[in-house]
Amino acid sequence: MSLHPSVAAVRVAVRRTLADLAPAGSGTTVLVACSGGADSLALLAATVFEAPRLGFRVVGATVDHGLQEGSGEHAAHVVEQMAGLGADETASARVHVEADSGRGPEAAAREARYAVLEQMAEHFGAAAVLLGHTLDDQAETVLLGLARGSGGRSLAGMRRAFDRYRRPLLDVTRTDTVTACQVEGIEYWNDPHNLDPAYARVRVRRKVLPVLEDELGPGVAAALARTADQLRADSELLDELAAAAYAEVAGAEPDLPVAELTALAPALRTRVLRSAALDAGATGAELFHVHVVALDRLVASRVGGQEAQLPGHVTAYLTSGGPDGRLRFRRTAVQG
Amino acid sequence: MSLHPSVAAVRVAVRRTLADLAPAGSGTTVLVACSGGADSLALLAATVFEAPRLGFRVVGATVDHGLQEGSGEHAAHVVEQMAGLGADETASARVHVEADSGRGPEAAAREARYAVLEQMAEHFGAAAVLLGHTLDDQAETVLLGLARGSGGRSLAGMRRAFDRYRRPLLDVTRTDTVTACQVEGIEYWNDPHNLDPAYARVRVRRKVLPVLEDELGPGVAAALARTADQLRADSELLDELAAAAYAEVAGAEPDLPVAELTALAPALRTRVLRSAALDAGATGAELFHVHVVALDRLVASRVGGQEAQLPGHVTAYLTSGGPDGRLRFRRTAVQG
Repeated sequence: MSLHPSVAAVRVAVRRTLADLAPAGSGTTVLVACSGGADSLALLAATVFEAPRLGFRVVGATVDHGLQEGSGEHAAHVVEQMAGLGADETASARVHVEADSGRGPEAAAREARYAVLEQMAEHFGAAAVLLGHTLDDQAETVLLGLARGSGGRSLAGMRRAFDRYRRPLLDVTRTDTVTACQVEGIEYWNDPHNLDPAYARVRVRRKVLPVLEDELGPGVAAALARTADQLRADSELLDELAAAAYAEVAGAEPDLPVAELTALAPALRTRVLRSAALDAGATGAELFHVHVVALDRLVASRVGGQEAQLPGHVTAYLTSGGPDGRLRFRRTAVQG
Repeated sequence: MSLHPSVAAVRVAVRRTLADLAPAGSGTTVLVACSGGADSLALLAATVFEAPRLGFRVVGATVDHGLQEGSGEHAAHVVEQMAGLGADETASARVHVEADSGRGPEAAAREARYAVLEQMAEHFGAAAVLLGHTLDDQAETVLLGLARGSGGRSLAGMRRAFDRYRRPLLDVTRTDTVTACQVEGIEYWNDPHNLDPAYARVRVRRKVLPVLEDELGPGVAAALARTADQLRADSELLDELAAAAYAEVAGAEPDLPVAELTALAPALRTRVLRSAALDAGATGAELFHVHVVALDRLVASRVGGQEAQLPGHVTAYLTSGGPDGRLRFRRTAVQG
């Protein structure tokens, strides 16, 4: 029997990632993060298949967020499945998600999950942690970023690799992971959260992307994922160039000569202004494009005494008009 | 009676553009391109209002593409309207659109339109030609580019300014232009093409954007337009840096040292590879991201004799493996 194309697609993707991690010493461990959904189970099955010939040991790891009823039983079931798929070892951990961390339940759950994956990776001395995000997850991330309108950074989607984490399936569709599970007789879990329209991501998946594919032709998800790759490479270089430019023009404390700022390319100047505003104490989560544009106009005005208000009670102003002016920031006194 | 906010929004936008064009000598002419739709009539009305205090003369110009029945009568009506709104002078020209230019009727009509606007601008000695594209047009352009998936360049939307052309209304919504016309008693034309779902742009406008706004919240169009501005600035700098990098690494003909290519940041390397492929004769309209990725893999492989096929019967290959290898291109013999 020839290999089913969906199984092949997942395996090729995993093989590439493992080959990039090699040359690892024989017996190097990779951890596969597994929710019990089709994507992560297909990822684990493919990793178990590909790992031996490249000399890797495979640990299947699942995290119980304790947020849904029966989550403990579910985690135990995933552990059984991971062992059944041939993981050399399995691990399960329950995390406590702070409900009122101030950043919303999704962000809190994600942070708790990475913290425990990090501990597990340390424990097993894992060279890499594989995550099961697919091309469709990437497309959804791009669309969610697009709706925020914060430029290339928010459109750049998820990274293929950071620290020891790798996302081998960013070129593989969700459908391929589901088909791979079906073909291989792997029972997968459908997270009820994935049907809950309270989540913006669920609305993007179930309402927005289907309309885009209907009206603009199939392949929109793939186009979005491709765009993310290109914009990530662009953003990384521009951020690096902007950091160098900032270091070069900045004086003591955030204090920037207007003449040198205006000589920068707009793509770098806006990034430098954003960094300077953050260094001056502006609130990152509330510092939007409109504030950076206001700073940019302030600099372009070259009028001494002009000001721009930034979130976090920070005021930006020009020390004087003309070529010798400097952009400075001061904390605004807050009424007690 | 206080000024209606929609009328104010259009006027403020036009005032900014005209102020940027000033200091123009008194009597300098601006041409306003006018289709008879709400956007361009609102633009003309605002320009007529703002121009005198900044010393501009206003010429209203309309182009009859001869593509719809009664287009001659329509153009004559637009000329009357432009005069009625107070344009200092009006102009109308009929263009002949080549049906079989090979680039589709929309591209052909656009090209013919710009050619005649250019002639009119020359004739009147116009310092600028104002175009009525709105924030919604920009958002649609971004979504159309997104569906193509060709990265930052395709997402960067329409330029605010190029040559003598200016788009003052890119921050103004289409609704504001319609309301401005209604408030000022200006009858505007609804182009039947704007309802024809055969056009991808019409489907984006009538199906895709409404779903995005419903599911992700109002303000998606504005977010898309903001994104376009940021990505355009990013693209311009990266294209400039890549052109400099290309000039530095390229030898005689497209012949590039692998070692220097791999030392470039990915965002520059992919652009340099694309330029080199085009210089080697690859067909621009068919040279997609997948080809650039194949070139990039070829370079990364450092294996002499490896090849990549490009559209336009061009083959890329490495002269040798290792650090001295060079990327070269050859035209593939085509069977006659």
